[in-house]
Amino acid sequence: MSILVVGSIALDTIETPTDRREDVLGGSATYFSLAASHFNPVLLVGVVGTDFPEEGIQLFHSHDIDLAGLQQVDGKTFRWSGRYHADVNVRDTLDTQLNVFESFSPAIPVQYKSASHLFLANIHPALQLEVLDQVTDPRVVIADTMNLWIESSSDQLREVIERTDIFLLSDSEARQLTEESNLLLAARRLLSWGPEHVIIKKGEHGAMLVNDGGTFFAPGYPLETVVDPTGAGDVFAGGLTGYLSRSDTVTDDRLRQAVIYGSALASYNVEDFGPERLKDLTMDRVVERVNHFKSFTTF
Amino acid sequence: MSILVVGSIALDTIETPTDRREDVLGGSATYFSLAASHFNPVLLVGVVGTDFPEEGIQLFHSHDIDLAGLQQVDGKTFRWSGRYHADVNVRDTLDTQLNVFESFSPAIPVQYKSASHLFLANIHPALQLEVLDQVTDPRVVIADTMNLWIESSSDQLREVIERTDIFLLSDSEARQLTEESNLLLAARRLLSWGPEHVIIKKGEHGAMLVNDGGTFFAPGYPLETVVDPTGAGDVFAGGLTGYLSRSDTVTDDRLRQAVIYGSALASYNVEDFGPERLKDLTMDRVVERVNHFKSFTTF
Repeated sequence: MSILVVGSIALDTIETPTDRREDVLGGSATYFSLAASHFNPVLLVGVVGTDFPEEGIQLFHSHDIDLAGLQQVDGKTFRWSGRYHADVNVRDTLDTQLNVFESFSPAIPVQYKSASHLFLANIHPALQLEVLDQVTDPRVVIADTMNLWIESSSDQLREVIERTDIFLLSDSEARQLTEESNLLLAARRLLSWGPEHVIIKKGEHGAMLVNDGGTFFAPGYPLETVVDPTGAGDVFAGGLTGYLSRSDTVTDDRLRQAVIYGSALASYNVEDFGPERLKDLTMDRVVERVNHFKSFTTF
Repeated sequence: MSILVVGSIALDTIETPTDRREDVLGGSATYFSLAASHFNPVLLVGVVGTDFPEEGIQLFHSHDIDLAGLQQVDGKTFRWSGRYHADVNVRDTLDTQLNVFESFSPAIPVQYKSASHLFLANIHPALQLEVLDQVTDPRVVIADTMNLWIESSSDQLREVIERTDIFLLSDSEARQLTEESNLLLAARRLLSWGPEHVIIKKGEHGAMLVNDGGTFFAPGYPLETVVDPTGAGDVFAGGLTGYLSRSDTVTDDRLRQAVIYGSALASYNVEDFGPERLKDLTMDRVVERVNHFKSFTTF
């Protein structure tokens, strides 16, 4: 099994009420890859500029992330800058510079095309469709999106959703996209558009999985200290996809466990700036928190 | 075992985007009693005016709710009026008329004083303290509050919390009262003030129980249609207290189950206006949803 991801690679500047970090390795594909690489080899498709640090490349290499699909082109790497409030659930985007990402066109290397699991991170739906046209019948297609594409490109997004097995989005995105404030109805509407499973990410309130088999809720892992929530959703997706890539089929049971693995990985990620906490995280520690999740929900 | 509740009894006018109901039976003590009466006799202390409908009295009688502590005095019953948005999680209070509730002073009938379980609904903390001074060592004291008292009477509220075994409040109230945006830290701070257990109600996101034993999360029951969320928190408290009153001691296990019973009852209550849905709800239906909660959280 192998996991193909297409998404952004960025250098982020992150401010919290007590600290600030510049040029932190970021982007959806980065967070996803570092999480998913715990489970199976990851094939990364993305673009960086000539300013991308060697240290970032080394980090990918040290996690067995294949970079044959990583384009390095003239110009600057995508940069994002944001500030978190004392309530870390609230953040302001201070600046976004697309740079080399603006003209990114995903080219899937031939040896990537038969990947078993495909994750379409929240890039423009037109690019997500380009990727879908290039791959050879992946077992599982998982896609994410964001408010920007819901507002600007909803027709193409609908087409992506139709071609997706597991569709991920946040609660506010689910409400915006379906124009339905009730999350269960929003999820059911999304299911009617094609996917077999919909997962709604609810930030500190955890995640909700809806499919024909019913509904599953994972709470947010209770943490005393959340340093930097950047990338939590992509780490969640990476853990989820990684866990699924360990077996042949996606059953409701496997998917529930995958949601918990994704949640456990995401809970570690927010404990430090950027993907710092993922760098030497072991599977033992992940399993430890997976077991905590049982204790949080058993009655 | 018997359950003593002191709180408001009201006549509510409730507007939703599609409907409007006048003079619906309401108030925290009303919702609590109807839910708790499924488990053990309820002793109700409150006040109504001369306009209080005979139908309300009959409803209490038919649920074995003892009314020896119900004062009926000259004047009008407490009235509240509110409007829910299309997103039922958002509501505007249109009008509040305290009427006879303004000069309410809880007088606990002598035969109520030895009740095993006491629920202090969200009345003024000074009144909650008056009640605590009148009762004879109840096994379990459960208290609720609201933003108004956090803003106006925080010292008295702190004293109530100190004398409470299980303290209930909403997530926004927990953040406001503790000045801590992280809910786990907010709950821990509340525990340090005295109670053995803190339960944070998170509306559609369910409830969170925190004590020395750890943390427990109950999701919100996924409903396709929420007609009227009025009273959900008090029904939750009623189911919780009622379930606890079925055994001698409060263990973490019992309390987790109590949270689920409260959640199941609350999920029914919001399916119709006011306490309508509680009128002939059977325990079989409640147990049905308690079992659904298992299926929502098992992995």
